[in-house]
Amino acid sequence: MDYYKESLKLHEKARGKWEMGIKVPLETAEDLSLAYTPGVAQPCLEIQKNEALAKKYTSRWNTVAIATDGSAALGLGNIGGLAALPIMEGKAVLFKAFAGIDAIPICLDTQDTDAIIETLVNIAPSFGGINLEDISAPRCFEIEKKLQARVDIPVFHDDQHGTAVVVLAALINSCRLQGRQLEELEVVISGAGAAGVAIAGMLLAAGVKDVVCCDSRGIVSGDRSDLNEAKVCLCSITNRKGISGTLADAVKDRDVFIGVSQPAILTPEMIKTMKPDPVIFAMSNPEPEIEPELAKEAGAAIIGTGRSDYPNQINNLLAFPGIFRGALDAGARSVTEEMKLAAAKAIAFTLEDSQLSADMIIPSPLNEEVAKNVAKAVGAAVEK
Amino acid sequence: MDYYKESLKLHEKARGKWEMGIKVPLETAEDLSLAYTPGVAQPCLEIQKNEALAKKYTSRWNTVAIATDGSAALGLGNIGGLAALPIMEGKAVLFKAFAGIDAIPICLDTQDTDAIIETLVNIAPSFGGINLEDISAPRCFEIEKKLQARVDIPVFHDDQHGTAVVVLAALINSCRLQGRQLEELEVVISGAGAAGVAIAGMLLAAGVKDVVCCDSRGIVSGDRSDLNEAKVCLCSITNRKGISGTLADAVKDRDVFIGVSQPAILTPEMIKTMKPDPVIFAMSNPEPEIEPELAKEAGAAIIGTGRSDYPNQINNLLAFPGIFRGALDAGARSVTEEMKLAAAKAIAFTLEDSQLSADMIIPSPLNEEVAKNVAKAVGAAVEK
Repeated sequence: MDYYKESLKLHEKARGKWEMGIKVPLETAEDLSLAYTPGVAQPCLEIQKNEALAKKYTSRWNTVAIATDGSAALGLGNIGGLAALPIMEGKAVLFKAFAGIDAIPICLDTQDTDAIIETLVNIAPSFGGINLEDISAPRCFEIEKKLQARVDIPVFHDDQHGTAVVVLAALINSCRLQGRQLEELEVVISGAGAAGVAIAGMLLAAGVKDVVCCDSRGIVSGDRSDLNEAKVCLCSITNRKGISGTLADAVKDRDVFIGVSQPAILTPEMIKTMKPDPVIFAMSNPEPEIEPELAKEAGAAIIGTGRSDYPNQINNLLAFPGIFRGALDAGARSVTEEMKLAAAKAIAFTLEDSQLSADMIIPSPLNEEVAKNVAKAVGAAVEK
Repeated sequence: MDYYKESLKLHEKARGKWEMGIKVPLETAEDLSLAYTPGVAQPCLEIQKNEALAKKYTSRWNTVAIATDGSAALGLGNIGGLAALPIMEGKAVLFKAFAGIDAIPICLDTQDTDAIIETLVNIAPSFGGINLEDISAPRCFEIEKKLQARVDIPVFHDDQHGTAVVVLAALINSCRLQGRQLEELEVVISGAGAAGVAIAGMLLAAGVKDVVCCDSRGIVSGDRSDLNEAKVCLCSITNRKGISGTLADAVKDRDVFIGVSQPAILTPEMIKTMKPDPVIFAMSNPEPEIEPELAKEAGAAIIGTGRSDYPNQINNLLAFPGIFRGALDAGARSVTEEMKLAAAKAIAFTLEDSQLSADMIIPSPLNEEVAKNVAKAVGAAVEK
């Protein structure tokens, strides 16, 4: 099937993938007097007295803004806020379908970091959480951090943390299958943008022994003078052995390769220099860092991609619905590292030992149990 | 029925009057590949090439932001953006129920005029129109004007123009019933805030002979030094005879009293000084400028209020759904005076001559024909 052509047809037919649904009767004059004026004055006054009651009397307990400036859309690059609207609408209906969350696309007409922060602070009263989406690195780091500091609802950049959570889940299950421990793994990450930086932090927080990150210029190391602030921070937590060089140098003797970078940059020869039975997550989309067939021939024991037409699809859909469901239900004011670790474990352990195989190290994105398990685990990890 | 108590119960039970509805299948991996990645890239790329296609491939053709800072909520005053959320949700579901429009509450965490404008400009790509709501005068005038100048979608402050349109509709039908012409009417408006200023402009645009406006300090006239910019403008179009004094002075010898001010400020004695068979629209809510019973005893021929428990409810619900439906369908980039005049006439002439009476000069807010008629008339009035 030509997904691109068929998708265009679907979008033309639907003219929007979501619509407003009405939850209260609006048939009679009495109905209007309760849902609107004059009766509506009462919940307004209650909320004015106690802001927390907004979650009792309005949809705020269950709403998420999906905000983007379209600066780093999928594999499309900087397409701007308006052109990213089909993606945000898709995400919105996935939030509803998988976690019952009412999520609203907020496509921004600015790519100025401060303006984005101010705008989202200013519209925050309508929402119980903010999912940042497709915002380019390193701007995304600053936007998330400063925005979270100014609002009392959870802010979550899915391209960073959603990806990191699902990668960790896949790695946990790879360890279960191979009889290894996270603590003994040496990992190389290709890509030091939003996803790469977050994956590095997440794996280290989970106990991984050493992580080396590469960007398009090679290994991210302290001897480079071309690093942005996020990559400088990365140096202080990754690359324990202080190596420098190319991706090929970084891959050598590693247990795990994680690609969030660009197509076809990992060769079979590189894989052959890795430790025995390496794990390869080649998530560049739609074209992975190496074709799964080639990776397998070169000795990869476990292979994951971002694609639905190969086994082991490492898909954010496994994380974001349940993470927000858990955070909203528990009244979390942010998404902490503990909550993300809990989410990764919940995804991983949705599969029992007996279900694990080299072609099944991560649940299907359509597995309805996952979001429930994640929400429960995340809620339990919220600091009270 | 105690609307306030029952409304609180309804809001607690509903926890939000709207929810996200899903318009596309999301059951299979193939569904996800069309609604989301990778297929969704195609409509994104099409929109990037031609922004107008957002209305073909997304919900933008049918979405309206209902934006407020909560500075002038109903009769509640300045309650802030968050506390106004129940009102905005109510308005949202009315948009859907009466015009099929997907409207989203945007409650603002700022009351700074420039910040409001910037914020709404920045989120405009998600929406096909912006309904400003419950923003205090005179800030509302500046916000609407500057915002409209910066976005290519219609901006409409309902407290101004929605009210003005429905008042004009009621006055048109009062004339039909009384066998008079708008051009011979002398009108007094009590209240020179958002609604009063807009009503004055609308009536004059429709041909009314003379309008005098009063604020809490009396007649708005050129000899006063305490007028804000909007009221200075008002002086140049209203008060043709240049009178000054109190509301009682203004009411004398007028044909029509329009109240958008405060409870019980119009007395029977004042009505007795008006021309014979005066028309009284006492729309302060929930307590009108004069109780309808008292107005009738004092000689009022036609009486309208903002309340559903009296005849002739002058309710914005008659205007905003159809105005936005017409504007969205016609691809209007603003709401012009012609469109508003067309809306008023469409509301008025939804009632045939034979249906008109002193207790029926305006259709019921629940009359489903109104929004259709308004949308059609407004669409036809859009400049192509």
